[in-house]
Amino acid sequence: MTATLDTAAIRADFPGLQTGDGAPWHYLDSGATAQKPQSVIDATVRAMGADYATVHRGVYARSADMTTAFEAARRRVASFIGGAEAEIVFTRGATEAINLVAHSWGNTHLRAGDRILISTLEHHSNIVPWQLLRDRVGVEIDVCPLTADGQIDLDAAERMLTPAHKLVALAHVSNVLGSVLDAPRAVALAHGVGAKILLDGCQAVPRLAVDVAALGCDFYAFSAHKLYGPTGIGALWARADILDGMAPWMGGGAMIDRVTFDRTTYAPAPQRFEAGTPQIIEAIGLAAAIDYVEAIGLPAIHAHEAALVRQLRDALRGMNDVRLFGPEDSAGIVSFALEGIHPHDLGTILDEANVAIRAGHHCAQPLMDHLGVPATARASFGLYSDDTDIAALIAGIERTKRIFG
Amino acid sequence: MTATLDTAAIRADFPGLQTGDGAPWHYLDSGATAQKPQSVIDATVRAMGADYATVHRGVYARSADMTTAFEAARRRVASFIGGAEAEIVFTRGATEAINLVAHSWGNTHLRAGDRILISTLEHHSNIVPWQLLRDRVGVEIDVCPLTADGQIDLDAAERMLTPAHKLVALAHVSNVLGSVLDAPRAVALAHGVGAKILLDGCQAVPRLAVDVAALGCDFYAFSAHKLYGPTGIGALWARADILDGMAPWMGGGAMIDRVTFDRTTYAPAPQRFEAGTPQIIEAIGLAAAIDYVEAIGLPAIHAHEAALVRQLRDALRGMNDVRLFGPEDSAGIVSFALEGIHPHDLGTILDEANVAIRAGHHCAQPLMDHLGVPATARASFGLYSDDTDIAALIAGIERTKRIFG
Repeated sequence: MTATLDTAAIRADFPGLQTGDGAPWHYLDSGATAQKPQSVIDATVRAMGADYATVHRGVYARSADMTTAFEAARRRVASFIGGAEAEIVFTRGATEAINLVAHSWGNTHLRAGDRILISTLEHHSNIVPWQLLRDRVGVEIDVCPLTADGQIDLDAAERMLTPAHKLVALAHVSNVLGSVLDAPRAVALAHGVGAKILLDGCQAVPRLAVDVAALGCDFYAFSAHKLYGPTGIGALWARADILDGMAPWMGGGAMIDRVTFDRTTYAPAPQRFEAGTPQIIEAIGLAAAIDYVEAIGLPAIHAHEAALVRQLRDALRGMNDVRLFGPEDSAGIVSFALEGIHPHDLGTILDEANVAIRAGHHCAQPLMDHLGVPATARASFGLYSDDTDIAALIAGIERTKRIFG
Repeated sequence: MTATLDTAAIRADFPGLQTGDGAPWHYLDSGATAQKPQSVIDATVRAMGADYATVHRGVYARSADMTTAFEAARRRVASFIGGAEAEIVFTRGATEAINLVAHSWGNTHLRAGDRILISTLEHHSNIVPWQLLRDRVGVEIDVCPLTADGQIDLDAAERMLTPAHKLVALAHVSNVLGSVLDAPRAVALAHGVGAKILLDGCQAVPRLAVDVAALGCDFYAFSAHKLYGPTGIGALWARADILDGMAPWMGGGAMIDRVTFDRTTYAPAPQRFEAGTPQIIEAIGLAAAIDYVEAIGLPAIHAHEAALVRQLRDALRGMNDVRLFGPEDSAGIVSFALEGIHPHDLGTILDEANVAIRAGHHCAQPLMDHLGVPATARASFGLYSDDTDIAALIAGIERTKRIFG
């Protein structure tokens, strides 16, 4: 199977994929953040310029128009992941979305002795908010182990879950290993003991068609900047009945119903969770990014990246002294290590050949501890990636091995 | 005194000030949000395109360059308000900045029985976070009254403050009345009883030269979008010794030192308060906005807006049935009401003449209660405002009075 997208045409849409001297840039760090298509940049320019106004407040036409566009962006996000408009809270990104759940739902609904199940491969953003919640209310955190090939071991989860578990919080796709969670089974296991389930969808929404209604999950979080959209915005989706029962977290304008010094009442969700002037420009950019991704189609993107993963894993397997992490069918992400060469050194030498990978702990230190390495090298694909990127990466690895050999 | 800036040249820098049909747009809602100069849009386009990469993590040159630019933006913000680089926390805006203080400082340092002093004219973003803190830890909130002309009555504050007061939180400039706080005296009064003082600088930083070191305050918050910069970003400045003593609030990547499932340690400030991928693009845009504002100069902007305020107040005073709120020497903001005409109706009719004002409670319902009105009409100036805007506003008010008369 070969990669199927017309990457020559797609790359022309991405000004960030050019280098200053016209040489190709082999950007293999889309798992950290994705480059932006021109259509997202153009939408941003219009939103900052000819269309710019505040939302929800203006009595003049431009503000009413911007409010319409902003709320249309919320509907666009909702339809993209299969939720309802009133279930989408705009946040700074997935990190804030998860922290919002920990505070607004966790503080109210969890108490000392309740348990939360996460997994060994979670990103710090799906570990630390629960540890801070543990400090606040005394919950216990259990860690579901991984299978030998780096997938969340749902058989183990099934054995671990008890009625004391009130929340299961798992990565839909691992940012290090690319492992894809069997989300329907995870949802069934969580609900089987009466727990809610949160999925960290940061690495999933750029790579898989996601339908939260079909998955049946309770919370879903993602960031726009990994989805070819702007920085500074992301979304929390939560089922309407759950969101309605969540307490205010940040106070300020727009999230209130009526303020007096004695007593303040709050707006309904999602506005209750969006204090202050929102990310107006960023919401418009996110909607444009979703338009771009959906025009290509997530099934096509997924098939394209899956073919690249197989191609890269096969090439790495053919080399001596390469350790490959994660499952064979990972989604768009391949982590590996070269015997005797620190990933940072590899990354630096690759950079000289215009190949950009990430080297480090990937905000997943417990997973590094589990793998027994301080860091991995990670190549992560986007819809603009192709076999020229893989060839450049392999050539760069060979050069690095010669330098260190 | 007349307005002094070359607004014809300045307006050419702002694509948002054009109307679709080429007619002038009289934008008098800069207190809600400011239009963006082309230089900010251009910086945003470069940051989203040719320069785009993540920060703090990449082992490749583009990411290192973006990290340099991002941290230079932090230094730019610091120097703009007279603070140190390590004292600047990027937030979504002033609202998040104040909520951050309420959680990270308030939860740790305040306890039941401690008192917080705010004022009658505060924006909801400087009321509700303290009410939510009151719900969490049991502090009491006192409200400093206003003088007859709508300034925070610091004589009253002096009588009210006690050693039980641990925090004074006041608007540096009122978003409704334009009242400018005597900040040095407020700082002295707060410190006189051992309280910390937070200034909400949203309406001040676009209108006054601010130097937090000279003011001697403890916390300062502002939003970029009112300062001719992007949405989705703002800053909290806090004195280094105070920031160092603040607990983590949001957990996630970038704010940690070392994560294990047992125990997590945290990064030093300001990174400890910036969980997740930051607003990379927005920080670059904010730095460009500060460059733009400083090239004109805040003393010149302040003098320009002060002259416009006097001109508008004189014109309004000359009309029958107009009630003027706030002090004569307000900074860039004039609130008023027309007898028998709801501000929303005025705003709608003004819009037909391409005049944009705000009508409503301005996220300051307690101040509306104090003024005895459900809403005011508010004209707020920016550095691109001039007497043609005032003439159009006055003509629109006269037309409205004829329609309703």
